[in-house]
Amino acid sequence: MPVTQEDHMQKNTVAQESPVLGSHDVVVVGAGISGLTAAELLVQRGLDVLVLEARDRVGGRTEGGRFASGTPIELGGQWVGPTQDEVLALAARLGLQTFTVHDDGASLLFADDERREGSDDTFGLGEESAAAFLEVLRLIDTTAAGLDLERPWLSPDAAALDRITAAQWLREHCADDGARDFTDTMLASIFAAESDEYSALHMLFYLGSGGGLHRMMTTIGGAQESRILGGTHQLSEGLARTLGDRVVLGTEVLGVTGWNAASSAEGAHHAEEAGEPARPVRVHTSAGDHEASAVVVALPPVMASRLHYEPALPANRDIALSHMTAGNVLKFQVEYEEPFWRAEGLSGTVLSLDHHVSLVYDNCVPDSERGILVAFVEGRHARAFNELGEVDRARLVLADLAQFFGERAGWPTEVLQRNWSEESFTRGCYGGRFATGLWTTVGKDLARRSGAISWAGAETATVWNGYIDGAIRSGQRAAREVCDALGL
Amino acid sequence: MPVTQEDHMQKNTVAQESPVLGSHDVVVVGAGISGLTAAELLVQRGLDVLVLEARDRVGGRTEGGRFASGTPIELGGQWVGPTQDEVLALAARLGLQTFTVHDDGASLLFADDERREGSDDTFGLGEESAAAFLEVLRLIDTTAAGLDLERPWLSPDAAALDRITAAQWLREHCADDGARDFTDTMLASIFAAESDEYSALHMLFYLGSGGGLHRMMTTIGGAQESRILGGTHQLSEGLARTLGDRVVLGTEVLGVTGWNAASSAEGAHHAEEAGEPARPVRVHTSAGDHEASAVVVALPPVMASRLHYEPALPANRDIALSHMTAGNVLKFQVEYEEPFWRAEGLSGTVLSLDHHVSLVYDNCVPDSERGILVAFVEGRHARAFNELGEVDRARLVLADLAQFFGERAGWPTEVLQRNWSEESFTRGCYGGRFATGLWTTVGKDLARRSGAISWAGAETATVWNGYIDGAIRSGQRAAREVCDALGL
Repeated sequence: MPVTQEDHMQKNTVAQESPVLGSHDVVVVGAGISGLTAAELLVQRGLDVLVLEARDRVGGRTEGGRFASGTPIELGGQWVGPTQDEVLALAARLGLQTFTVHDDGASLLFADDERREGSDDTFGLGEESAAAFLEVLRLIDTTAAGLDLERPWLSPDAAALDRITAAQWLREHCADDGARDFTDTMLASIFAAESDEYSALHMLFYLGSGGGLHRMMTTIGGAQESRILGGTHQLSEGLARTLGDRVVLGTEVLGVTGWNAASSAEGAHHAEEAGEPARPVRVHTSAGDHEASAVVVALPPVMASRLHYEPALPANRDIALSHMTAGNVLKFQVEYEEPFWRAEGLSGTVLSLDHHVSLVYDNCVPDSERGILVAFVEGRHARAFNELGEVDRARLVLADLAQFFGERAGWPTEVLQRNWSEESFTRGCYGGRFATGLWTTVGKDLARRSGAISWAGAETATVWNGYIDGAIRSGQRAAREVCDALGL
Repeated sequence: MPVTQEDHMQKNTVAQESPVLGSHDVVVVGAGISGLTAAELLVQRGLDVLVLEARDRVGGRTEGGRFASGTPIELGGQWVGPTQDEVLALAARLGLQTFTVHDDGASLLFADDERREGSDDTFGLGEESAAAFLEVLRLIDTTAAGLDLERPWLSPDAAALDRITAAQWLREHCADDGARDFTDTMLASIFAAESDEYSALHMLFYLGSGGGLHRMMTTIGGAQESRILGGTHQLSEGLARTLGDRVVLGTEVLGVTGWNAASSAEGAHHAEEAGEPARPVRVHTSAGDHEASAVVVALPPVMASRLHYEPALPANRDIALSHMTAGNVLKFQVEYEEPFWRAEGLSGTVLSLDHHVSLVYDNCVPDSERGILVAFVEGRHARAFNELGEVDRARLVLADLAQFFGERAGWPTEVLQRNWSEESFTRGCYGGRFATGLWTTVGKDLARRSGAISWAGAETATVWNGYIDGAIRSGQRAAREVCDALGL
C-alpha cells in the first residue's frame, strides 16, 4: 500500500515548522522597481520592512550591462517618456540624468519584401496603407481612451471586446492589408506577442494605460523619447541604497503561508500595539521563514503564480496570475566603431515585417563615440530563436541588420544579448497579456489584495501598465494598501 | 547596501545541500494515473522506482466520493468509452466492472430562452440549425481526421488554424447562429473553456485525438458510454497497490535539479554497471532530496511549470508548460430519492446555453435505487462560480436543475461538489488548452523529453488527449522513453 510521508519522516509541506529567521511588519517579495518602491514608502511610514530577492541583483526587468569598450548599456527596460511622471520624478530624485534619443533621419520599413524609407509615423508605408493606418491608429486611440482603466471589465463593450483577439478587432476595423500588417508588427513590438495572442480588450486597455498607441509607438514625444544616462537599473539601485540591508539578495521565496489569516493584518497590528506580537503570515525560503503582518508580492504574475500558497489561493486569483502570460523577446545591443547609418541619413529606426528582427533603434549614448543599435526579436520570432544557441542568434540578427543597413552592419565590435524568456526569475518580457475571456472573468482579481498579500508589479498598473512607470505606480498602490490594512 | 544571503546565512536555493533521503533509478512526480502507469511499467523492467505524490491520495483528476446514503460516486473523471482501449484494458486487468450509462428518453436543450426536447445528436434543435450543426460536425470531424496528431504543427494549414480561435473557425464555417451557439456550448462542455480561448488547431487536435467531436459528445458509442462500478479512482488505487510502498503520499515535490546532466541518464546507468554509483538528478522536497537517474514529471502542465528547475528549463519548454492552461469546471453530484425524470420520459441529459449549468447527465449507479444527476458548470460560468461559496453554488445549481426537470429537482437528498480550479495540486480540469500561436511555436516541446526528465500526463497524449485513456498512454510513452534512455 502507498505510504504517507508521516509514516517515516516529518510532514513534508512548506507549512512545516521551519526556522524563523526574522519577524517584520512587511516582507516584500522581489526587488524589482515595484517592490523597492513599495518598500521605500513603507519604511518612510516607519514600518520594519524586508525585501527578498532571488537574484544576486536588484532591478528585475531592468538590468545594467557594459560593452567591452566600457560603455554601459541596458539589457532590459530602457526608455522613459512624457507622462511617465513617476519614473521621471524618481530619476530626478536620485540625481540621474536623462538624455533624448537620436531620431534624426529616415526610418526604414521592410514589408512584402520591399524596403521603404519614411520620416513620419507611417515609416514610408504606401499612400493608401498609410492613410488606412492613420485611420486605425485614431480609432484605436479613441476607443482606448473610452475605457475604464481601473476596471476594464466594466468598459463599454467589454464583453464583446474580450471575446475577440486584437487581430480580429484589427481585421474588422482595417480593410487595408498593408496597414493591418504594419499595425500587427507595431503591436508585436509593444506586446512581444502576436496580435492573435491577446484579446482586443487587453490591447485597448494596455495601449490606453499608456495614453494610446501613438504615444507608445513614437520616440520623440512618446514612450521611447528618453533614456537614463548609465541605465535604468540605477533606479532600482538607488532605491536599494536607501533601503540598505533591508534588501536581501540571493534568497528565493518558495511560498507564503497563513496569508488568509490577515483579515488579520489589522488584527496583528493592533495586537502589537497592545504589546502582543502577532505575525500571522510566513514567507518561506529554503533557508527558513520570515514572519510578517503583511506581504507585497512584487513579481511578474506568472512568477507569482509559481509560489506555494497555503491555504491555496482562490481559484480566480490563481487563474489571473497564471493566465497573465509574459511576452517573449530577445534584446540585442550591437556596438560598432561609429554610428555609420547616420551619415547615410538614416535614423537607425527599422520596423520589419519580413525578418527575425522586427524593431531596431539607434541606441547610442552621449558618453561614447561608438555606434550602438538595439535590435529586438519578438513574439513568434522569439520562440523560434529560443531553439538556437547564442552564436546562431547573433549571426541571424547581424544578417538582418546587414540587410537593413548594408554589409557594414554585419561587423560590430560587440554584441550583447539577453533572452528574457530564459531568465528563470522572469520568464518573459516585456509585460504580460490576457488572452480572450480573461479580463471580463478574472481581470478584477489581477491587482486585488488577497488577505495579507498585496500584489505589485508592472502588470497590475492602470497607468503605463507593463512599463517602468507602471511598476512604480503599482508599488505605490501596494504600499497604500498595506498602510490602510495596518491602520496607518 | 543590499546584502546577499551568504553574508549571514547559508546559500538559499533549492540546489543547496539537503539531506538525501534515497537513491532510485527513476523518481515519478505525481501519482495520477499517468505517473502510476509509468511507474508500474518501469518496475516491471526491473527498475527501482519511487513515486512522490503531494496529496494524501492517488488518482489525480480522478477521485472517489460517497453520498451519505453509501453510494460511491466520482468527484473527478468518470466516463470511459469505445476506442479508449487502454483504460478499458486496465479496468479489466484490475478486475473492475464497467456498466453502460442510462440514456433512454428525451434529451433537453435550453437555448434562446426556449426548452426543446430531442432524442438525437441535435437535442431538438430547430430543423435548419440541426442541419447546419450536423454539417459543421461533419466538417470538424473530417478536418480533425486529417491532422497529424503526433505533430499537429505539421498538419495541413497548421499555421492558419493556429492563428484563429476555435470561435473564429466556427464563425467562418457555420453561418447558422443557432447551430453555432449549440456547437459552442458543446465545445465548452468538452474543453471547460470558451471556444474563443483556444486556437482552432487546438480544437481540431483535441477532438481528433479522441476520434472526433461526434465520438466525444455522445454517450452510447462515445466518450460517455460507460462507467466503472465503484468509480474510476480505483484504477489508480489498483496500480498503487501493485507499487506498494514505492508510492509515497503527502510529499510535495518542490523542484528538480541537475536534470540536464543526464545526457547523462545513459551515462549514469553505464556508470552503475561499472560499479560506480551516479545519480545525476535530484528531486527536491522540503523534507529532503531523492536522487535518480531519470525523472518522470506526471503533473498537469501548469503544475509542472511551478516546480523549481535548476538549471532553468529552456524557454520554449517553460512556455509550453505554462501556456497549456487548464479548463475551469465545477462538478456537482446530486442525489435524489429516485430518478424521477425517467418516469417523465427524460434521459436526464441536458445541454443549456442559458444557465450556469451547461451540461447534465443521469448518473445513477447500478447498486443504488437513488436517482443521481451530474451537473457541470464550465468555462466562464465556472469563473463566475469561483466567486461564490459552496452554499450559493449548490443553490444556483439546484435552481437550474429545477428549471430543467421541475421543482422536484430542487429537493435532493444530497449534493456533492468539487471545484477543480480550487484544488491546489490540480488547478483546473478537464484538460489543458493552447491559445492561438502556441501549437505552431512551442507545441513540439509539450511532450518532448528534457534531459533526464520525461513529461507525462493527459495533456501530453496524442490519443484521447485530456482523458484517462490518454493519461495511461502518456505514462506508457514516458516509461518507454526512460527505458530507451537507460538502454533497457
